[in-house]
Amino acid sequence: MESPFSRLNARTACFLFALVTIGEGGRLLVIPQDGSHWLSMRAIVEKLSERGHKIVVVAPEVNFFHKASQHYTVVTHAVPYTPDEFAHRFRLFTHQPFEEVPFLSRLVGLYKATRQLQEMFFMTCESLLRNREIMRSLEESRFDALFTDPVSPCGVILAEHLSVPSVYYYRGFPRLENTFTKCPDPVSYVPACFSRNTDRMTFIQRLVNLLFSFLEMPLLKISYSSYQEIASEFLQREVRLPTLYRNGSVWLLRYDFVLEYPRPVMPNMVFVGGISCEEGKHLSQEFEAIVNASGEHGIVVFSLGSMVSEIPMKKAMEIAAALGTIPQTVLWRYTGEVPSNLANNTRLVKWLPQNDLLAHPKARAFITHAGSHGIYEGICNAVPMVLMPLFGDQMDNAVRMESRGAGVTLNVLEMTSKDLSDALKAVIYDKTYKENIKRLSELHLDRPIHPLDLAVHWVEFVMKHKGAPHLRPAAHDLNWVQYHSIDVIAFLLAVVLIVLYISLECCLFCFRKCGWKKGRLNKKSKSKSQ
Amino acid sequence: MESPFSRLNARTACFLFALVTIGEGGRLLVIPQDGSHWLSMRAIVEKLSERGHKIVVVAPEVNFFHKASQHYTVVTHAVPYTPDEFAHRFRLFTHQPFEEVPFLSRLVGLYKATRQLQEMFFMTCESLLRNREIMRSLEESRFDALFTDPVSPCGVILAEHLSVPSVYYYRGFPRLENTFTKCPDPVSYVPACFSRNTDRMTFIQRLVNLLFSFLEMPLLKISYSSYQEIASEFLQREVRLPTLYRNGSVWLLRYDFVLEYPRPVMPNMVFVGGISCEEGKHLSQEFEAIVNASGEHGIVVFSLGSMVSEIPMKKAMEIAAALGTIPQTVLWRYTGEVPSNLANNTRLVKWLPQNDLLAHPKARAFITHAGSHGIYEGICNAVPMVLMPLFGDQMDNAVRMESRGAGVTLNVLEMTSKDLSDALKAVIYDKTYKENIKRLSELHLDRPIHPLDLAVHWVEFVMKHKGAPHLRPAAHDLNWVQYHSIDVIAFLLAVVLIVLYISLECCLFCFRKCGWKKGRLNKKSKSKSQ
Repeated sequence: MESPFSRLNARTACFLFALVTIGEGGRLLVIPQDGSHWLSMRAIVEKLSERGHKIVVVAPEVNFFHKASQHYTVVTHAVPYTPDEFAHRFRLFTHQPFEEVPFLSRLVGLYKATRQLQEMFFMTCESLLRNREIMRSLEESRFDALFTDPVSPCGVILAEHLSVPSVYYYRGFPRLENTFTKCPDPVSYVPACFSRNTDRMTFIQRLVNLLFSFLEMPLLKISYSSYQEIASEFLQREVRLPTLYRNGSVWLLRYDFVLEYPRPVMPNMVFVGGISCEEGKHLSQEFEAIVNASGEHGIVVFSLGSMVSEIPMKKAMEIAAALGTIPQTVLWRYTGEVPSNLANNTRLVKWLPQNDLLAHPKARAFITHAGSHGIYEGICNAVPMVLMPLFGDQMDNAVRMESRGAGVTLNVLEMTSKDLSDALKAVIYDKTYKENIKRLSELHLDRPIHPLDLAVHWVEFVMKHKGAPHLRPAAHDLNWVQYHSIDVIAFLLAVVLIVLYISLECCLFCFRKCGWKKGRLNKKSKSKSQ
Repeated sequence: MESPFSRLNARTACFLFALVTIGEGGRLLVIPQDGSHWLSMRAIVEKLSERGHKIVVVAPEVNFFHKASQHYTVVTHAVPYTPDEFAHRFRLFTHQPFEEVPFLSRLVGLYKATRQLQEMFFMTCESLLRNREIMRSLEESRFDALFTDPVSPCGVILAEHLSVPSVYYYRGFPRLENTFTKCPDPVSYVPACFSRNTDRMTFIQRLVNLLFSFLEMPLLKISYSSYQEIASEFLQREVRLPTLYRNGSVWLLRYDFVLEYPRPVMPNMVFVGGISCEEGKHLSQEFEAIVNASGEHGIVVFSLGSMVSEIPMKKAMEIAAALGTIPQTVLWRYTGEVPSNLANNTRLVKWLPQNDLLAHPKARAFITHAGSHGIYEGICNAVPMVLMPLFGDQMDNAVRMESRGAGVTLNVLEMTSKDLSDALKAVIYDKTYKENIKRLSELHLDRPIHPLDLAVHWVEFVMKHKGAPHLRPAAHDLNWVQYHSIDVIAFLLAVVLIVLYISLECCLFCFRKCGWKKGRLNKKSKSKSQ
């Protein structure tokens, strides 16, 4: 039998031949998202591979983290942009939060930076779906399931095309998961994305929340309108994207309710927040030496995430000045030009073992961009945080941590050196921050099964049982009017009105009859008296 | 130190002395419900005891299943009814489904039978709360948590009095858990209790469902109104029962979505359906002999639950006649007078190892009253069912099994011998029933953790962390108007109306101005022309 991927490249073909012919374990197709999204998803894929499943990861040839692996086959497809353009578009996006421009210009800048990134993601998807060679190979491979990050609908569309059940791995972004799972979402206590609200709102905050929630659907529609078109073209029939999303068997959501506010959920949502946390491993000699040298003051870990390792010099100098005001040793992941005012206590590193450093007993604080992975590592290891949200869900994460008294949020653009210095001193020396993060950490870690094992279980479940149809709510088969019982209520109202009308008419009829008789009697008596 | 329970009895005091002084593990107070409700709850309590926790079970002195145990201390309290009255009230209730009377009389009979049972439960609760000696002892015992079946609010009230966090263990009954957890419950696809609807309804069924749902709250209020009064009296302040219920940290619900229809849930709901299923153990010699003698035809297991072991003779004879028409050996749990027409293939037994018999490869069918424990044992062991629901949630369970093609439901009152015989032959010989139950069983058993371990985990979680405040939705702090954002919507509407009104007034003003000018100009031109 010819390997379905034999036309691709030798290494790939070798892996896929194994996939097709050995037949041990299951066959999983992975359509991931690049960037930090992939990092924790990769851990699940690797564990699934260790459990004997044959896995194909399809990624664009220009990417950040999709390198060859012993655990899975990476099949890359051509894309219509160069590595330089790719880097440039990401840089535009990640540098946008540092632009010192008026508010409206910032909003426009943010919109443009987001759109140009979305356009690139769309090009990636389009080029995959139009790649006949890869499509033919995927069709021939008869996968048991498709595992995707649904922030891009590409995997969702592909699952429909290949008729395979799918598992979504997702952080949650403008309520996409609630819209597509038909999960109720009371706007009175579920904060809208980007609203900076918590779950406890004043009247004005609830008003703002409602207005923000009105924006979420249009935002979703703008973001996904082009995918709707290509989906219809690719599947050769008119399709609606929400319908395709609803075919997702299980949503693995990177939530834990120590961070997220409790709210209604659906049975096919599985919560795997903290999936990337693990027990701290021994530090390398280099880092161990730095940490040990920090003495009783300990260390501060500082990273703005996998996507932001350099920032404008002015901001870097402000930050460097602040870091110099604390006695702790600061380990700062930073690849830009060294700020001239860098203090002796600050060590710039190109990469740092974030979880292992946070797990060290000497970790006193964590300066983070409030990405969900970093936040959960901070929670796991009970390290209070100074939060500098940059984009995406980061502001929402920061609001959550701050509302739980486990961190201080700073506006990276507006903050001064003193703000950062004060925030650091607060989280390090004010015991309530440590106590609060410790309590959150204890709650978070006291779970019946590790999120990674839970995620692996549910992917295997979907592979084994060809989906999870028993978890699909009947709501998906109802239209808006039916779902809200508007037809039934209208019918009941109509019945009530008709009954009222008939009763009224009967009463009037009786009244007239009586009145007529009375009138007639009066007339008679009058005529008699006359 | 004097043992808090030293005034009770020697054995109890001995246990409680240990509880107070040893201090190993946690201290758990259990306020259970009697009957089948207790049987699976007991398994959790026993496992918790094995894990080193000291447990006190408080039960009425007149009861079915609350016997002394090596695992926990049973503290009994006096009740104002005799064992005879207790048995009589239960018999009235359990025999009610067999009364051959007109429909309306049946409804009245059902209402009366339920009320007299509820009255007895209330007396039990009242006598416990008024028992000063036990109350004082419980207050002194400083429990870490209270574990209760919230079908009776007694434990809920007591948890408030003792200021301990509580865990509820519950089957779910008139949507009590959704009302009290503020879990959305769309009536368009979530079938109302007793409505006999599935999650896929026609327009008429949705109409009926809505009308049934209107009845649920009044039913709940009628059932619990007397508890509301005693709670206020006992706690010496005005309290609302829903507020007390909302203090429950975790709801352990005996649901699994292979049986229940998927619908919105809340993060503090933990699903432990199938908790009582375990691998089939070796049968005793007596049962092994019967099963082996059944030959290739195998066996049928027949039980109407722990509460119904005898039925009226007329019905027993109809059933016996039907059982005689199949070649399988029938094991029937039955303690009444032997029907004269009992066939050779039917063995009456006072007790049967239900799960072990169902787990035997020779089990061909399960005749059950559709109690949730029995249903899950049938699902665990993949045995198709003939369902004869009698009362409570049993009709709902039966509808669910039948809608999944894994059983045939019979009306125990109206069914003939032929109906039962046909139903048995259908589930035994029509392969689809076996295939469907096998599929459900595979889905049900493929879980990351056994429901019993999950239940134990969450009880321990609440004991250890003094509750689970991170799972409490902010919805509990909103009133009805706020929760539904009615104030916010009204405000927005008012703003829109005011803006519209002002705009209209401005337009009219401009129009009048222009009209006036025009009119004046016209007048002027007219006067000029004159």
